Amino acid sequence: MKKFVLVLLSLFLLLVFLYGAIRQEKSEKAEVPISEQTQECVDCHQQYTPGIVEDWLDSEHAAETPELALQKTGLEREVSSDSVPENLLKVAVGCYECHSLNPTLHKDNFEHFDYKINVVVSPNDCSTCHALEADEYARSKKAQALGNLQKNPVYHTLVETITKVKKVEDAKIIPLESSHFTKAETCYACHGTRVEVKGQKTLSTDLGEIEVPILSGWPNQGVGRVNPDGSKGACTACHPRHSFSIEIARKPYTCSQCHLEPDLPAWNVYRESKHGNIMQSKPNDVNWESIPWKVGKDFKTPTCATCHNSLLANSEGELIVSRSHDFGARLWVRIFGLIYSHPQPKKGDTSLVKNKDGLPLPTTFTGELASEFLIDDQEQKSRQSKMMKVCQSCHSSSWVAGHFAKFESTLAETDRMVLAATKLLLKAWEKGLADNTNPFDEAIEQMWIRQWLIYANSVRYGSAMVGPDYAAFKNGWWNLTENLQKMKDLIELKTEKQ
Amino acid sequence: MKKFVLVLLSLFLLLVFLYGAIRQEKSEKAEVPISEQTQECVDCHQQYTPGIVEDWLDSEHAAETPELALQKTGLEREVSSDSVPENLLKVAVGCYECHSLNPTLHKDNFEHFDYKINVVVSPNDCSTCHALEADEYARSKKAQALGNLQKNPVYHTLVETITKVKKVEDAKIIPLESSHFTKAETCYACHGTRVEVKGQKTLSTDLGEIEVPILSGWPNQGVGRVNPDGSKGACTACHPRHSFSIEIARKPYTCSQCHLEPDLPAWNVYRESKHGNIMQSKPNDVNWESIPWKVGKDFKTPTCATCHNSLLANSEGELIVSRSHDFGARLWVRIFGLIYSHPQPKKGDTSLVKNKDGLPLPTTFTGELASEFLIDDQEQKSRQSKMMKVCQSCHSSSWVAGHFAKFESTLAETDRMVLAATKLLLKAWEKGLADNTNPFDEAIEQMWIRQWLIYANSVRYGSAMVGPDYAAFKNGWWNLTENLQKMKDLIELKTEKQ
Amino acid sequence: MKKFVLVLLSLFLLLVFLYGAIRQEKSEKAEVPISEQTQECVDCHQQYTPGIVEDWLDSEHAAETPELALQKTGLEREVSSDSVPENLLKVAVGCYECHSLNPTLHKDNFEHFDYKINVVVSPNDCSTCHALEADEYARSKKAQALGNLQKNPVYHTLVETITKVKKVEDAKIIPLESSHFTKAETCYACHGTRVEVKGQKTLSTDLGEIEVPILSGWPNQGVGRVNPDGSKGACTACHPRHSFSIEIARKPYTCSQCHLEPDLPAWNVYRESKHGNIMQSKPNDVNWESIPWKVGKDFKTPTCATCHNSLLANSEGELIVSRSHDFGARLWVRIFGLIYSHPQPKKGDTSLVKNKDGLPLPTTFTGELASEFLIDDQEQKSRQSKMMKVCQSCHSSSWVAGHFAKFESTLAETDRMVLAATKLLLKAWEKGLADNTNPFDEAIEQMWIRQWLIYANSVRYGSAMVGPDYAAFKNGWWNLTENLQKMKDLIELKTEKQ
Repeated sequence: MKKFVLVLLSLFLLLVFLYGAIRQEKSEKAEVPISEQTQECVDCHQQYTPGIVEDWLDSEHAAETPELALQKTGLEREVSSDSVPENLLKVAVGCYECHSLNPTLHKDNFEHFDYKINVVVSPNDCSTCHALEADEYARSKKAQALGNLQKNPVYHTLVETITKVKKVEDAKIIPLESSHFTKAETCYACHGTRVEVKGQKTLSTDLGEIEVPILSGWPNQGVGRVNPDGSKGACTACHPRHSFSIEIARKPYTCSQCHLEPDLPAWNVYRESKHGNIMQSKPNDVNWESIPWKVGKDFKTPTCATCHNSLLANSEGELIVSRSHDFGARLWVRIFGLIYSHPQPKKGDTSLVKNKDGLPLPTTFTGELASEFLIDDQEQKSRQSKMMKVCQSCHSSSWVAGHFAKFESTLAETDRMVLAATKLLLKAWEKGLADNTNPFDEAIEQMWIRQWLIYANSVRYGSAMVGPDYAAFKNGWWNLTENLQKMKDLIELKTEKQ
Repeated sequence: MKKFVLVLLSLFLLLVFLYGAIRQEKSEKAEVPISEQTQECVDCHQQYTPGIVEDWLDSEHAAETPELALQKTGLEREVSSDSVPENLLKVAVGCYECHSLNPTLHKDNFEHFDYKINVVVSPNDCSTCHALEADEYARSKKAQALGNLQKNPVYHTLVETITKVKKVEDAKIIPLESSHFTKAETCYACHGTRVEVKGQKTLSTDLGEIEVPILSGWPNQGVGRVNPDGSKGACTACHPRHSFSIEIARKPYTCSQCHLEPDLPAWNVYRESKHGNIMQSKPNDVNWESIPWKVGKDFKTPTCATCHNSLLANSEGELIVSRSHDFGARLWVRIFGLIYSHPQPKKGDTSLVKNKDGLPLPTTFTGELASEFLIDDQEQKSRQSKMMKVCQSCHSSSWVAGHFAKFESTLAETDRMVLAATKLLLKAWEKGLADNTNPFDEAIEQMWIRQWLIYANSVRYGSAMVGPDYAAFKNGWWNLTENLQKMKDLIELKTEKQ
Repeated sequence: MKKFVLVLLSLFLLLVFLYGAIRQEKSEKAEVPISEQTQECVDCHQQYTPGIVEDWLDSEHAAETPELALQKTGLEREVSSDSVPENLLKVAVGCYECHSLNPTLHKDNFEHFDYKINVVVSPNDCSTCHALEADEYARSKKAQALGNLQKNPVYHTLVETITKVKKVEDAKIIPLESSHFTKAETCYACHGTRVEVKGQKTLSTDLGEIEVPILSGWPNQGVGRVNPDGSKGACTACHPRHSFSIEIARKPYTCSQCHLEPDLPAWNVYRESKHGNIMQSKPNDVNWESIPWKVGKDFKTPTCATCHNSLLANSEGELIVSRSHDFGARLWVRIFGLIYSHPQPKKGDTSLVKNKDGLPLPTTFTGELASEFLIDDQEQKSRQSKMMKVCQSCHSSSWVAGHFAKFESTLAETDRMVLAATKLLLKAWEKGLADNTNPFDEAIEQMWIRQWLIYANSVRYGSAMVGPDYAAFKNGWWNLTENLQKMKDLIELKTEKQ
């Protein structure tokens, strides 16, 4: 009987232990050494900025050393660099490991409690471990997103026309200056700001006075941010804050920060599509962190990342398409019309494009392509075949063929609807009803902008990702047609007046 | 002591087993035999289209044979047919079981690796097991959604006016053709296309050349799709892809694919309502698959399906309202104004309706009802009482009475706001400021369309499901009022010009 | 061997027990006594309104007595009243406990199966246990939301102008009455109705005839609802129905019921912000019920409640900011322009404000502040510092400084864009192109309303919470600029006509 009690007691202890183990399973992580420097950051910042410290503590960067990550091979590999500097190998990827890299390049480096710290961590810093992703990204349009707006006189004029403060005097509208603040929270919020060090300032804190750099264009996580080390981009645009989560990057909410209606309703169309329906209905049935991402096994419906850049495999783990951080890698046509749809530009830096009229645009005013700056047929086919491979992992080839035939037709038709509006604008200019010095500032010009920037784009996104509302009444064909009529009416009313 | 070790060892093995059992519980399913034919489909398609195969493998169709499903009785019954053909009884409802039904009816049937396969599975095929649902659906407006647009000359003109490509010549807008592609991705994306076999084509695949049918109007999952077997509808509109999930159909994201702003903002209103708030806040506290769906026990707040068609029971499992796949079964009034709100039409095929002016519309231009084609008072009361029963399962009768009194008032008021706009349009026509040959193509006509199609509808949906923004500033009373003023202004400006 | 079998058997029983315990853990709640009266309510209503009964049964009110809740101290305390009446102490907070309070104050009290029941539970009733929250709320603008619209002649005119039914006679628009129903489902749906007893009526039920009060303005959960006991507000606006869930109140979907585009797009901006992205991507990684709410530990990204009113602590549970149910407690400036942005009003009742022109507005028509009614610099700084403390729990001080510098600039710029529109309106009035008797009813006046109510507000919310689309193309700078141009064009067209 004594033995029996003993056994029962042992049993109880075991059960308690097991019960605890089951419950802790999820929060349990292998203990990973934290560097002395990072430990010091954590000790202090856990009190002052607990949000980011806890975010990092829950991240994969805190849970695995580069040395371990380098042991993964094949499609499971997450660290693309062949090797990682010795001093980073055996500790968690912590505060100090990232915020102390390449200090001589970083104009934002400053002394902080005896450490030399960069305020901003840049794609160049991330490339220490993720070299391939940084390379792909650097070649993409995203990395050039600020210059592509600023260095292109046409787009630059559009930005300035919209964001300038105006005053009214005697019923006349007088455009004044556009502030860097307003541009930073409108266009450049997504395109990225130029982050520059403007001096130093002293802050009084509980730990005494501390000196910190004054940065202009900060905070910002735009995709084309120009960093204080000269590199371009912000990995945190999609892998936010200190979790660097692949789950968040794979979810459509991330892309929805910038790709949304009225001008580029990718998120909105996805949300209303069947793809989006299933994702929103069953978000918990997806394995959001699996690498590679197995179609069917890990997820039943795609998100933005699935089709546009994720590494996909079939149920057996065999490659379907490779990962790319050049987000145009599976795109052949650019449906964001400027002012017409056109093949993707050859280079990320689109300010180099010149059309036949000498303007830095991918087409002429009437739609002729600036072909030498755009990818050729072969490259278009190659990219399209990558996208089709993704589609065909869930859809039959006749389904996919039917979808793309419809899409091709829509590109042509929306371009014609833009041409129709352009012809009305040309007529208004010809009649002197508007002045083409600035093509973006008068009422009829604003209507013309709506035709290509909002309505034609909406229809194309609606077609590409099957969100019929955006092709119909929500900035779609209804609006393409209505807007054309309004332009005609305004011309007639102004003609009479004239 | 030896015994003790032995006991501990046994114990450990048991614990390991138990631990595994707990973890696997959710993924565990009864083994269900798969037919030889379906196994062959799976073996090949798991490599070529893994997404749909895995989707099906996780579905209830893969987890239960019709024979077992037929044993459920009362409110728990899911298979409404009295019997199911012998050959389908004892195997999972797999690829071959559905894609091989009624081959002689299916013009899309083709030979595929020695099997005769239908590309499209139709409601008629689904009726093999789900006869009642297919019957109800066939009688609903949804099943007739394509014909209701195409066969009605008024609506057909509206579709054509919106979707025609236009060209501009000398400041005149010239409507050209509307492509079947554009109609298929705008109006017919939700209303359904006609899917027809246009021939055969040969595809080169890893397994050699295969012949597949060429289908027009494909892919499409519109509710009124006309299938190659002549049946109407697409069950996949709401039970998408190969999971046929009741959870997805019960979630509002499904309905949101088509029922959304600006013209019928049911989803948007729901999302901002308290119902929608609670659903979005606590989606994981709902038993999404329980049949019947028990108010309070299974869910605390309704979705679209709850109020409009689900089988509901109280905490004890007693019937509150029956399931219906005629989605008008609990609707007495049609708040989607054409151009005024009106009692629901008697038949799903609304192209048969004729108003007093001989037009195929449920009211005249000034609002007189085409009563003989619309349900009578008794039927209205009967349907309303079903809806009220749903409301009353969470709300007191004084609450419900207050809500519906408000709603009735709003129907009348929005109809008057439509009448006001109609009178302005009549004046414009009378004055020759617009031409009524096509009532949908000129600027003042487009403003009039906005009044009934967008703004009056928004207010009514906002009232019906308590989303105040859609009754106020978001296409609501603000816009009803503003639009009327704009119509008046345009008439004045054009009158002067005249 | 016998012993061994015995041990194994005991073991099995234990395992079965443990397994059950693990599975039930979540649904398990301490048994709390339910009062006799509440038990009677439940017995009957579980059949008639199962939704609310089950909702309550799952609530914290059903799971804890006030006596136990009073034992919590410090930041964990949820019941702010020092004491709770003896008769409520030892039973669950049930139907009868809440619906029977203060019967002499409640004009909606009625006899219901021998009990005296209030239809409406008011903030004054809730103050029995939650005195501090009720006090704070009563002082806030929210509690005064109905009077602030109704008693202010300017705002009242705006409400009436928008919601009046109009008729058209001979191309003239004639405003008629605005119904209380329409106001109740537009403006007052959020601002609150006045709930009044209008008599009694008899209902036939399965249990015989019952008498119930007839209430006007009911149902309604607006924040400034005037209750039948004279108190103002509706706790259910944010803690909906019978769960009184803190989780739901902390989720942004709750605030999104009223704070949404086009006029105050707080929800929409949040949704597209990085904060919103992370929340939507990982809603299940948050401890939604923890009190205090620990930054980083309990959540990684804020919701509306986090920044505006929740009790926040750091990882060690030390206070960061106190809870407040005056939702302006951390707001210094009012970005909802009327018609310009301005410091928060001193009192919740803003109908008392008078500007230099004698109008009940916080600024003059050209932007001069009615300073004596608005909080002073010191109070502004004090409130701003509370908000900054919240920001700094995740962001560095230079980040926060950068953000607020941008925001300050935007307030000034958007006010200038409103001034520009106002000057155009003044010109139109001066020229006799519009009549300023009612400043809200003509086309150019409606355009002016859009400038401040929709576009300037959007830009400010977009700036405050970092949703760039709402500062740019979605009712942002694009629209501020376009609308100004349209106003100018209309003036020119009308001038010509004149």
